[in-house]
Amino acid sequence: MKILNIIFKWTHLSAIRLIVLYYALAVIFSMGLLSLPFFHNEGVELLLIDLLFTTVSAISVTGLGVVSTPETFNTAGIIALTFVLQFGGIGIMTLGTFIWIIFRRRIGLRERQLIQIDQNQTSMSGLVKLMLKILKTILLIELIGTIVLSTYFLQYFDTWQEALLQGYFGAISATTNAGFDITGTSLVPFASDYFVQTVNMTLLILGAIGFPVLIELQDFLWGDHRPGKRTNSFSLFTKLTVTTFFALIAVGAVFMMILEQHHFLADKSWHEQIFFSLFQSVTTRNGGLATMDVSELSDPTLILFCALMFIGASPSSVGGGIRTTTFAIMLLTIYNFAKGRTGVKVFGRELDTDDILRSFIVITTAAMICTTAVITLTYLEPFPILEIVFEVSSAFGTTGLSMGITADLSTAGKCIIIFLMFVGRIGIFSFLFLIRGKVIKEKYHYPKEKVIIG
Amino acid sequence: MKILNIIFKWTHLSAIRLIVLYYALAVIFSMGLLSLPFFHNEGVELLLIDLLFTTVSAISVTGLGVVSTPETFNTAGIIALTFVLQFGGIGIMTLGTFIWIIFRRRIGLRERQLIQIDQNQTSMSGLVKLMLKILKTILLIELIGTIVLSTYFLQYFDTWQEALLQGYFGAISATTNAGFDITGTSLVPFASDYFVQTVNMTLLILGAIGFPVLIELQDFLWGDHRPGKRTNSFSLFTKLTVTTFFALIAVGAVFMMILEQHHFLADKSWHEQIFFSLFQSVTTRNGGLATMDVSELSDPTLILFCALMFIGASPSSVGGGIRTTTFAIMLLTIYNFAKGRTGVKVFGRELDTDDILRSFIVITTAAMICTTAVITLTYLEPFPILEIVFEVSSAFGTTGLSMGITADLSTAGKCIIIFLMFVGRIGIFSFLFLIRGKVIKEKYHYPKEKVIIG
Ligand SMILES: [K+]
Ligand SMILES: [K+]
Repeated sequence: MKILNIIFKWTHLSAIRLIVLYYALAVIFSMGLLSLPFFHNEGVELLLIDLLFTTVSAISVTGLGVVSTPETFNTAGIIALTFVLQFGGIGIMTLGTFIWIIFRRRIGLRERQLIQIDQNQTSMSGLVKLMLKILKTILLIELIGTIVLSTYFLQYFDTWQEALLQGYFGAISATTNAGFDITGTSLVPFASDYFVQTVNMTLLILGAIGFPVLIELQDFLWGDHRPGKRTNSFSLFTKLTVTTFFALIAVGAVFMMILEQHHFLADKSWHEQIFFSLFQSVTTRNGGLATMDVSELSDPTLILFCALMFIGASPSSVGGGIRTTTFAIMLLTIYNFAKGRTGVKVFGRELDTDDILRSFIVITTAAMICTTAVITLTYLEPFPILEIVFEVSSAFGTTGLSMGITADLSTAGKCIIIFLMFVGRIGIFSFLFLIRGKVIKEKYHYPKEKVIIG
Repeated sequence: MKILNIIFKWTHLSAIRLIVLYYALAVIFSMGLLSLPFFHNEGVELLLIDLLFTTVSAISVTGLGVVSTPETFNTAGIIALTFVLQFGGIGIMTLGTFIWIIFRRRIGLRERQLIQIDQNQTSMSGLVKLMLKILKTILLIELIGTIVLSTYFLQYFDTWQEALLQGYFGAISATTNAGFDITGTSLVPFASDYFVQTVNMTLLILGAIGFPVLIELQDFLWGDHRPGKRTNSFSLFTKLTVTTFFALIAVGAVFMMILEQHHFLADKSWHEQIFFSLFQSVTTRNGGLATMDVSELSDPTLILFCALMFIGASPSSVGGGIRTTTFAIMLLTIYNFAKGRTGVKVFGRELDTDDILRSFIVITTAAMICTTAVITLTYLEPFPILEIVFEVSSAFGTTGLSMGITADLSTAGKCIIIFLMFVGRIGIFSFLFLIRGKVIKEKYHYPKEKVIIG
């Protein structure tokens, strides 16, 4: 660990600034890469703002697009794009997990008695092993996805090259939850192909469920199960985020079924109803792929989806938004308060007051940023308010669904969406850390005074 | 204090349940009163849901209307309505302040060393004196308002009786921030009468600024100023709520001026611009009166007004919403966190962690209730989403502004708005207290465990 500490001290970068630095460098490098005419179809001219937008959208694995991917990029360009998606998806996920481990260790040192967390990942070699494990896991998932989809796509496409490209891009886009497509119309062509949808949903969930969850699952399945080893139990984080993740999918699917019963789903069979609802709900978690034109949905469903996209995916995943754990902590705190309890108990653990406070800070800051963005965009752009709210939620959640206004935004409007994708991807918590000054060790305290609340 | 304690124990009512009981009884009594045909114009037939809606709107001093006040009620009915507004406005404000005092005392007993608050209002006679003081103050404000407005209205109306009625109703409606009008078009007839607007804004602010503020101001101006007496300084609550209150008015006015520059305010003179912006901003604090048809405003202004109405007025005032202090505490906490500070310092005091947590609970619960209401209403009603969001914010903030859909809501829609006016008026904090069980003295604790946040 000494080497790591030295690196940190030497660069004067906090762990979170490292993410931002990585993100910034990745954007610059990828912009250079994607600007190469070699990767473009003939006759394509990319405006600087559209190049920036596409790059940030790819690095933040959002998937909002101001240009059509298959019309802009040739096959080489599409392959280059998948590398950018990998930088964005795996890169930041790896760093996120890495920082999680660092924080766990730091907390451990200070609050060892208070917080029961294990210390078995604190050596430098352990960290490198962990990062390789992440890389291996994701690449394996993508490889399997590519093989399955490409093989299956042989029936859809004329040449095996085309099937391979579609399968490869589809697997990368789904696993990194990128939301980009090279069909030109997302997964709409597969609206009645439940196999493709099931594979996609599986990949989307594996990418968005959070890397610590995947690691713990691996440990649980194939790890060392002698008594006393960590591998026998899941962390509170994993229990919380997995529960919330699937609960949100269920809520989205069930309510879409109810709300669209006399609308979009009116003339659909029961299995179409289930798959349309389930896929669109899964995609709001972070995927951004869709098997239908979401602007066909009715207003209540769209507002619900805005809320779901705003919540977003798990921390340390490829997804954005306020994150599932944050949302869960908010609900648990309100519930426990309404029940008249003093602490917040869940899964046989008690939440830390600092975590609770941070969750609320994240949620309210995010809500204020998004509200300000909506007000500014309604002022700048001619679009109806719901389309703007949807676009803002999608950008902040790095989801990538759109009611179709992205390409028609003004340059100022595009800049706002770029900012939201950036903040949504690094997370409000990192964003606040980024703009915060040096942490001040406070030397004095004022007397406390109570006030009347709401 | 013994008598009070006995009363409390005897009735098994917590202080907050008392408010709800008062509210419920006031609704039932007022429904009976307003249903009397004696108070109606000839030929008027009030549906039960409309009667309930009007009563709750009056008791919660919201001012949303499903029927026109001057068309439904005769002069006697209008006078009866002002009594209902008094029940709602003064009654709940008095109780709110009363409970504030009780809480201060309770906190004082337990945390005397920690929190510097004075104890000079804890005797039964002190409380009765205080409540009489509230009553006297408000009635005095209303009396002065009536005299000023009625005298001035002599130039507008043919008979002195009509001028008196208009002046009397106007003063009551403004001071209690009721938002009801008997002109049929709110204050639109006075859109170019700055005197009437200034009087109205003064009354609106006096009603919505919070009663503890008025008491402390009275004490400061005419109280005992010998050294060591409380009357020499304002409480943190007063400083916080007054600053926030006027800051919100400034934000609303300035941004309405900017956002409407090429829209509603395009053809207006500079003084018209100032008065239109200022009055509409003041009214979002809680008044609900307007000098224009708010549906003429552009989308960004309307969304901003939704946010302002959602925030609402000061605690222990005639207003609703999440309350100014709650919003201020949120901003301060985020700011201090972003600055890397551990405590939240303001005005030479430090905020209590419990208060911070409660503020966030209030805000997020309110946001979830309002979002659910918006989704449900967009499902039930045929109106555009912005009109529904505006209606919901207005009901929850008990503001009473509307883009014009209130009367056309379905019965289910009206019930949702009634619920929001109720919750907005008693406040989320009281609402959660109301639904909460017996406070459990926890006998055990789980180990704490940290999780990843946003
Ligand atoms: K995405
Ligand atoms: K009102």
